[in-house]
Amino acid sequence: MNKINMKELAKELNVSVGTVSKALSDSHEISDQTKKKVLETASRLNYTLNPYASSLRNKKSKTIAVVLPEVADNFFSLAINGIQSVAEKKGYHVLIYLSHEKFMNEKSILCECCSGRVDGVLISVSSETTDGDHILKLQQQNIPIVFFDREFEGLHVAKVITNDFECGYQSAEHLISNGCTNPVFLSVSSKLAICNNRADGFKTALKDKKMGDGEKTIIECNGTKEEVFLQIKNMLTTKNKPDGIVASVERLAMSVYLVCQEINISIPADLKVLVFSTLETAPILNPPLSTISQPAFEIGKTAAELLFKGIEKKKYNLTDETITLPSVLIERTSSQAF
Amino acid sequence: MNKINMKELAKELNVSVGTVSKALSDSHEISDQTKKKVLETASRLNYTLNPYASSLRNKKSKTIAVVLPEVADNFFSLAINGIQSVAEKKGYHVLIYLSHEKFMNEKSILCECCSGRVDGVLISVSSETTDGDHILKLQQQNIPIVFFDREFEGLHVAKVITNDFECGYQSAEHLISNGCTNPVFLSVSSKLAICNNRADGFKTALKDKKMGDGEKTIIECNGTKEEVFLQIKNMLTTKNKPDGIVASVERLAMSVYLVCQEINISIPADLKVLVFSTLETAPILNPPLSTISQPAFEIGKTAAELLFKGIEKKKYNLTDETITLPSVLIERTSSQAF
Repeated sequence: MNKINMKELAKELNVSVGTVSKALSDSHEISDQTKKKVLETASRLNYTLNPYASSLRNKKSKTIAVVLPEVADNFFSLAINGIQSVAEKKGYHVLIYLSHEKFMNEKSILCECCSGRVDGVLISVSSETTDGDHILKLQQQNIPIVFFDREFEGLHVAKVITNDFECGYQSAEHLISNGCTNPVFLSVSSKLAICNNRADGFKTALKDKKMGDGEKTIIECNGTKEEVFLQIKNMLTTKNKPDGIVASVERLAMSVYLVCQEINISIPADLKVLVFSTLETAPILNPPLSTISQPAFEIGKTAAELLFKGIEKKKYNLTDETITLPSVLIERTSSQAF
Repeated sequence: MNKINMKELAKELNVSVGTVSKALSDSHEISDQTKKKVLETASRLNYTLNPYASSLRNKKSKTIAVVLPEVADNFFSLAINGIQSVAEKKGYHVLIYLSHEKFMNEKSILCECCSGRVDGVLISVSSETTDGDHILKLQQQNIPIVFFDREFEGLHVAKVITNDFECGYQSAEHLISNGCTNPVFLSVSSKLAICNNRADGFKTALKDKKMGDGEKTIIECNGTKEEVFLQIKNMLTTKNKPDGIVASVERLAMSVYLVCQEINISIPADLKVLVFSTLETAPILNPPLSTISQPAFEIGKTAAELLFKGIEKKKYNLTDETITLPSVLIERTSSQAF
């Protein structure tokens, strides 16, 4: 016996697909009589129910997902607040999923998001993410998606980012103008576009100033906290050690400070430090830490606004929009000329 | 015509309720023939479908919810990691919901959790939470729930907490033994049991030492960041200003440091500071900050383990279990005798 679909069932009953769907999901809008008739016909024509999937598909979940690598970072905390400020006004719930920087987790989370659990997805990709099939799959299901901060390049996905290349350039210029002759850039992953853009800006500035040794000035630090601590400690105890560090993320700067405390390196006298971060404790660290501060709240807010355009207007083209919000270098003691 | 329920329908068909449920949710475990028979009988006996609710009820969502006041706090970040370490092994997703310290948000989130979206809930209540009806409602739906860190007292709900009273007592003793004669305790809310227990310990120690003026030593700081900054600034510029502060949460200590930096109060010479926190930057602050460090990762991990006992063994009594994991005072420069 052939299976029939909901459209054919509706045609047979001479009612709309909506009525069939509502009847099968026991909606109060449909009379008991109609529900009975729908059930009888469904049974007679061998219509197979899949209530879980279909009702989820038809129902607005009034929920958006935010997929993040971690929350122990001021940038993401502030971005979440920005997202929530928009979602609250729209009467939407925000679900936060953490990938913990693992590609496998991220794939499994997006697969979960395909099930109809959420109406849209905001994502900052993990440092391991090397292909975009899981993201394309979400788009194919017509679930709006927006990158914020960390994008996966080469896809037609809307994004809200900051001027990473420019800031990377500026960070090197800043250290050099304050006296550094051997600065390095600490990257969290060579797979992350955001890190590579910052690193490229950094390298270009060194090249323009005829300084540094190209690729060798970019150090990848992607181990556990203990491994990164050791890696930085080793780097700062070699003969040709750097006299300036630009850290691409908050936690790398924290490790640099802890290493310097342990092996008595004086910041900024022996080493100048600058970090891409919105760290709230930056002014009360010893010494106060210079930052390239991303507009984290604004990035989250803008990404959420863009996502809701996609959710509310089904025809709105969310694929190629890019919004760039500039970051600001805030000079504190850690990177000053000495 | 009377409606019949699934049990009656199963009896009529001479199959188990499970078979009926699976047939109605189009499970691959059930033959097409049985599905057809179930549908026919359901239709004949006027059984009313509620596929959305029933399939959600019967289907394991393989998801747990973590309801938190905020993520911009190292304690909660670490606790989430502890929770995730258990959930990952169980093959479960973790959804993070933020109440942003608002009772209304928390109620709406738990209402959402009742819909079958999750198999269990871990919650740290908001500082505004003044009744427990929303929590009782979840229990009535047989959704396992465990408090971690912040509980709502007076309910029969399992909890994983730390020794707050004892640590409050110890914090006052520590400041007094290091020379403070006028210490105060900064509470984030008089509605939070966890804060009150810490404050009660603090007050009891002062009483035992015949010091301080009871209730007046407990200062509630529950405004916006700017309001709290001003409140602390005013407190530290009065004639009879305190010479020691115990902050009940991380962000209050940050505000104290920022105020001291602005108005040139020297820590620990003029003011000793101690905070309930797992702040990772504590050792690199200026000066290094003394903390009462809760075992945040362990609290999250233990709470998740308890929750899974409730999820996996339906008969397991999750109501009155209390696990207390002790915190540790780590003395750094900020609270030292001068």
